Amino acid sequence: MTISEIASYLGGEVVGAATAGSCNIERLEKIEEAQEGSITFLANPKYEKYLSTTKASAVLVSRKFDISPYANCTSIAFIRVDDPYVAFLHILPLFIKVPELFSPGIHPTAIIEEGATLGADVSIGAYAVVSEGAYIGDRTKIGVGCVIGKFAIVGNDTTLYPNVVVYHQCKIGNRVIIHSGAIIGADGFGQAPKSDGSYEKIPQLGIVTIEDDVEIGANTTIDRATIGETLIHRGVKIDNLVQIAHNVVIGEHTVIAAQAGISGSTKIGKHCQLAGQVGISGHIEIADGTVIMAQSGVPNTIKEPNKMYFGYPADEARKAQRAYVALKMLPETIRELTALKNKVAELEKKLEERPSSTKG
Amino acid sequence: MTISEIASYLGGEVVGAATAGSCNIERLEKIEEAQEGSITFLANPKYEKYLSTTKASAVLVSRKFDISPYANCTSIAFIRVDDPYVAFLHILPLFIKVPELFSPGIHPTAIIEEGATLGADVSIGAYAVVSEGAYIGDRTKIGVGCVIGKFAIVGNDTTLYPNVVVYHQCKIGNRVIIHSGAIIGADGFGQAPKSDGSYEKIPQLGIVTIEDDVEIGANTTIDRATIGETLIHRGVKIDNLVQIAHNVVIGEHTVIAAQAGISGSTKIGKHCQLAGQVGISGHIEIADGTVIMAQSGVPNTIKEPNKMYFGYPADEARKAQRAYVALKMLPETIRELTALKNKVAELEKKLEERPSSTKG
Amino acid sequence: MTISEIASYLGGEVVGAATAGSCNIERLEKIEEAQEGSITFLANPKYEKYLSTTKASAVLVSRKFDISPYANCTSIAFIRVDDPYVAFLHILPLFIKVPELFSPGIHPTAIIEEGATLGADVSIGAYAVVSEGAYIGDRTKIGVGCVIGKFAIVGNDTTLYPNVVVYHQCKIGNRVIIHSGAIIGADGFGQAPKSDGSYEKIPQLGIVTIEDDVEIGANTTIDRATIGETLIHRGVKIDNLVQIAHNVVIGEHTVIAAQAGISGSTKIGKHCQLAGQVGISGHIEIADGTVIMAQSGVPNTIKEPNKMYFGYPADEARKAQRAYVALKMLPETIRELTALKNKVAELEKKLEERPSSTKG
Repeated sequence: MTISEIASYLGGEVVGAATAGSCNIERLEKIEEAQEGSITFLANPKYEKYLSTTKASAVLVSRKFDISPYANCTSIAFIRVDDPYVAFLHILPLFIKVPELFSPGIHPTAIIEEGATLGADVSIGAYAVVSEGAYIGDRTKIGVGCVIGKFAIVGNDTTLYPNVVVYHQCKIGNRVIIHSGAIIGADGFGQAPKSDGSYEKIPQLGIVTIEDDVEIGANTTIDRATIGETLIHRGVKIDNLVQIAHNVVIGEHTVIAAQAGISGSTKIGKHCQLAGQVGISGHIEIADGTVIMAQSGVPNTIKEPNKMYFGYPADEARKAQRAYVALKMLPETIRELTALKNKVAELEKKLEERPSSTKG
Repeated sequence: MTISEIASYLGGEVVGAATAGSCNIERLEKIEEAQEGSITFLANPKYEKYLSTTKASAVLVSRKFDISPYANCTSIAFIRVDDPYVAFLHILPLFIKVPELFSPGIHPTAIIEEGATLGADVSIGAYAVVSEGAYIGDRTKIGVGCVIGKFAIVGNDTTLYPNVVVYHQCKIGNRVIIHSGAIIGADGFGQAPKSDGSYEKIPQLGIVTIEDDVEIGANTTIDRATIGETLIHRGVKIDNLVQIAHNVVIGEHTVIAAQAGISGSTKIGKHCQLAGQVGISGHIEIADGTVIMAQSGVPNTIKEPNKMYFGYPADEARKAQRAYVALKMLPETIRELTALKNKVAELEKKLEERPSSTKG
Repeated sequence: MTISEIASYLGGEVVGAATAGSCNIERLEKIEEAQEGSITFLANPKYEKYLSTTKASAVLVSRKFDISPYANCTSIAFIRVDDPYVAFLHILPLFIKVPELFSPGIHPTAIIEEGATLGADVSIGAYAVVSEGAYIGDRTKIGVGCVIGKFAIVGNDTTLYPNVVVYHQCKIGNRVIIHSGAIIGADGFGQAPKSDGSYEKIPQLGIVTIEDDVEIGANTTIDRATIGETLIHRGVKIDNLVQIAHNVVIGEHTVIAAQAGISGSTKIGKHCQLAGQVGISGHIEIADGTVIMAQSGVPNTIKEPNKMYFGYPADEARKAQRAYVALKMLPETIRELTALKNKVAELEKKLEERPSSTKG
């Protein structure tokens, strides 16, 4: 693919090394490693230093990027685009080929139970089971060994990788991606203590609803509601090994990193970001646009939107970070306090002794 | 089902709106959302305010609840019961129908290896494998795609949801529930360092024993012992994505919330509560009735029973909470200390200057 | 097996109870529980006290162990070896029999897609799928229900327990062990924010490469790279429920305990130890030989090798531990500071009052 063709594909403009347009690009590389025949990108200014040494034949830059320092560089063609990183992502699939992961049609070993409905052009992998009353939408791909429970609904253009389990009656939207080992709709953790100290299981009779354009990572678990639904709104992106408890609601376009956990009945707003290993208490609400930094534990409702939180227990990030910096100095602080106590005791003593001398 | 029938089913007593006994109840709803024809419950006093506005036809209340303020309310029938919430749970399944999740009998694609034994009235799902020498008890349900290892034993009336793996020789009790993706009996993490800095695998030759009435969440992992057994005593309830290492013992009726982890050879007492994301060190003991708050890390043995712990590293909850509150004020504390140091220096200076003036 | 035979098998030397060499050993037990006919070991000096009471017939001790206090003990034969614990591990399999877990050959229900290649003497379990273009090495065992993606490569003498998923194109080395439910090569968590607040999936076009002699725990997830590879070097040992994000590199012979998580593009050195529930930020480097204590969170690059870290955020272990000890005393420290402030205010007042008295 020539540099001109790539620029045209991206709606970009070739500048610098003007004759390079017909040069053939063979692969994508990082700016610091790129060789002749490669295309790379410059999004973060701190990587600009590599421009003087890179052997890349083409570099995606922003429309505002000042190329004048490189005016006499003949080996690099710059392609101006709106967002160099996103442009790079868009051309990735042109250079890296992925095998067709799902075979068209229904594998002869797949079990489609009576009363299940399959849309047009589905792919159902080997040893997958689509249970009685379940529905699989058009062009949806169900991987090897997946289990779709009774009366579960999976929308159109959705992809379930191998060994996903969707329990009975749960609803999955359109264009959803669920990675291997994710478990959707297992029982919420509801155990009522009895007077003898044992527990009685609370029936978990609700469902999980996952709206459109959600992605769910490998081995993540999303529990069904006690009554009603655990609800993942559209556009939510969830990483691996995340725990979402019963009756949780996650607002649109919230992202949740790996190993985070959200306790029962908590409601997370829209456009939030939960970093890795974050824990959120049950029965609270997190305002829209909240950012929770890694490993933080949030015990209480956060009402004010668009703030960043950190710590265990979590506090506003700047405040918490100051506290943790202070914590590192705490042993020294305590030593200083002890020294000061001694000094004050001395002063006190001096002051006690003085009266007699003034009287003298 | 009429209000009288429900009261009778629960051993409760209808009071108020006396003529309502024959009214038909069609569904269960939360008190704040309930409509005519619904039954709801009042367990937490802070929800009592909704009694004046709810449209519910029946409300479960405790035997001690004072209904006199609602004497002239004609739309609500109260049903007095011992525990309104538990009563509500008991009638849940009467109103919310769940499909029969496990088909009776042995699916034709299930593999029952030679030397495996099946009890009466079992359900073995599609593509499940019951290995040589394994035993499945009466009325036990093995979900689609489960793998029961060689010589493993599963008791009576136990339910394994799809894609559970039970490794060889492990023992599962009666009335146990194991959710999808849980792995019982994988090798413990035993790696002996060698002089060249590499590691030698320590054979994991023990088993996992899970006693009666245990519930295990989705994608939880319980490792087999090095020698002997990893032992989950009866009545223990374990949430999703929990890690239980080799040779751990969990006492009766302990509950463990999601993403908690217990390191090797640790012994947890009876009736403990471990909240989400808690971590417990290896080779320690936790006394009966201990409560560990979320995300806490417990490095040492806890000897005194029935105490609550919090923090990283964990301390008695009240003490730890005071420390964390103090931590939030720490930057201010340090500023105050600095101010005080300056003031003391000033005082010291004044005191130094004074002698001459007193002499003057 | 006689004591002499065991000593000879281990290259050890029988001392004490000299006539005991022909005594038959029937089982392995802990020193505090051992009965006649048992062999046990003494590695940790604090267990030496049990030597006076144990009923074991043989005890593995180090070559330096002083047996003179036990010279007149006729019931115990000592076997001197280089490392008593490792020697004990070596004889474990002689006494505890494990069933053959993988049946030889290809189960008739296993699906070997066209273009897949199987080495000599492989074991492929029931309902396993080896996809088009995949390669399985000699003597490798693929458990029940495993899914080997298209063009994935699995080396020789490797073991995959049931229900492991290896996504397309990933590479697994020789003598690797992967436990049930582990997911190798699911998409990295790459989501580019768009101007409307939604996210666009970044294609994950790289692979996972796992080198020789690696062990991976149950339900662990290792994501494929965006471009290039997520790389687990040889000898790495990973416990259960660990998250390894895209483009991470783990150095040789590093061990990672359960529920730890490593964010994208981070590079962990050789011979590191990450304890349970540790979290490591993305795009940083951890020096060789670093030890990270349980639940710690590492936000920044660690450059100096062979140090121990602790805390959230992590700091050098000794420093961090002093800070956490100080934190426990912090409420008391604040009380002391307040008391001191009051005392200084008093002193100040006295000093203010004094001038007049000196003038008097």
